[in-house]
Amino acid sequence: MKVYLAGPDVFLPDPLGMAARKRAICAAHGLDGIFPVDAHPDHPEESDLPRWLWIYRRNEAHMRAADAIIANLTPFRGPSADAGTVYELGFMRALGRRLLGYSNVAADFVPRTLGFLGPAARRDAEGRWRDGEAMAVEDFGLADNLMIDGGIREAGGVFIRRAVPEADRFTDLGAFEACVEALAAGQGATR
Amino acid sequence: MKVYLAGPDVFLPDPLGMAARKRAICAAHGLDGIFPVDAHPDHPEESDLPRWLWIYRRNEAHMRAADAIIANLTPFRGPSADAGTVYELGFMRALGRRLLGYSNVAADFVPRTLGFLGPAARRDAEGRWRDGEAMAVEDFGLADNLMIDGGIREAGGVFIRRAVPEADRFTDLGAFEACVEALAAGQGATR
Repeated sequence: MKVYLAGPDVFLPDPLGMAARKRAICAAHGLDGIFPVDAHPDHPEESDLPRWLWIYRRNEAHMRAADAIIANLTPFRGPSADAGTVYELGFMRALGRRLLGYSNVAADFVPRTLGFLGPAARRDAEGRWRDGEAMAVEDFGLADNLMIDGGIREAGGVFIRRAVPEADRFTDLGAFEACVEALAAGQGATR
Repeated sequence: MKVYLAGPDVFLPDPLGMAARKRAICAAHGLDGIFPVDAHPDHPEESDLPRWLWIYRRNEAHMRAADAIIANLTPFRGPSADAGTVYELGFMRALGRRLLGYSNVAADFVPRTLGFLGPAARRDAEGRWRDGEAMAVEDFGLADNLMIDGGIREAGGVFIRRAVPEADRFTDLGAFEACVEALAAGQGATR
């Protein structure tokens, strides 16, 4: 089984080192991990395309070839997960693939969003949290925007959250390995 | 043609008012606008599901029934677009639908991200911007994460950015209407 390893991991100082670590964990559980920066036979490095479009096409090709996604949904530069990773989660849901995700921040979306907003956040007349521009804070006790939690749930997937020391939250792979174990055990099944 | 109207608009104090405005613009151009909170025949309000899961299923049903998406990609609580909207853009790309997006912030992703990071941002030895945890800032002169710009481009879609006064950025519909006009004129075509 091929699993696409999505996440802001690609922005790490040593993305290839992270790719090797994640692939090794996958291999130890009998899975074939595909990291976004891995080569794809249909998308050689030599290309006349702008680099960003070449990367897009390669990533899309990796996803179409994969049976599952394990998405690193650790909040990234704001209360939500990395935008590219979220796009890929939606993409894989529409393809009917297995969805698994993890976050190394255990807190719910609401307290994270309130922490992000700071003193601008306030309750409206109905008691609902709103930001300084009166935009509501989604409050369902979930890990992130409901489309993320909902997509994973609807796919019969797995979303694992663990509290990790802040400095380690983009490199700790405990929750990732728990996703790999779940996938290897047959969880994350498409309904 | 049915077009799904994605965006953080659902968090406005009057989402139904925004739904009416957007639907009217669509109708004026011969399009059938579907706002996320619209009723769906297969997903009546009376449901035993948790509300967030019911909303997810309704939104997914709306998307599957739509021919196109016009996504409000105005940055929301961080440098990137709203996470739910980005999920929906990826979902619609995988379904092969027409993709259109707009942002009422004209600035590129890099200056927006640097503004978000503040003094923590610094250049590494190769001159690449990194945040305080050494995570790279994606720098391709795009509007957002490359998966967003790339998905729209790859779909033959349209991404319109306009500078709007900050206080109006979640309510101004000039760029939205430009997307509607483009879609009505046959742009945003799936390749």
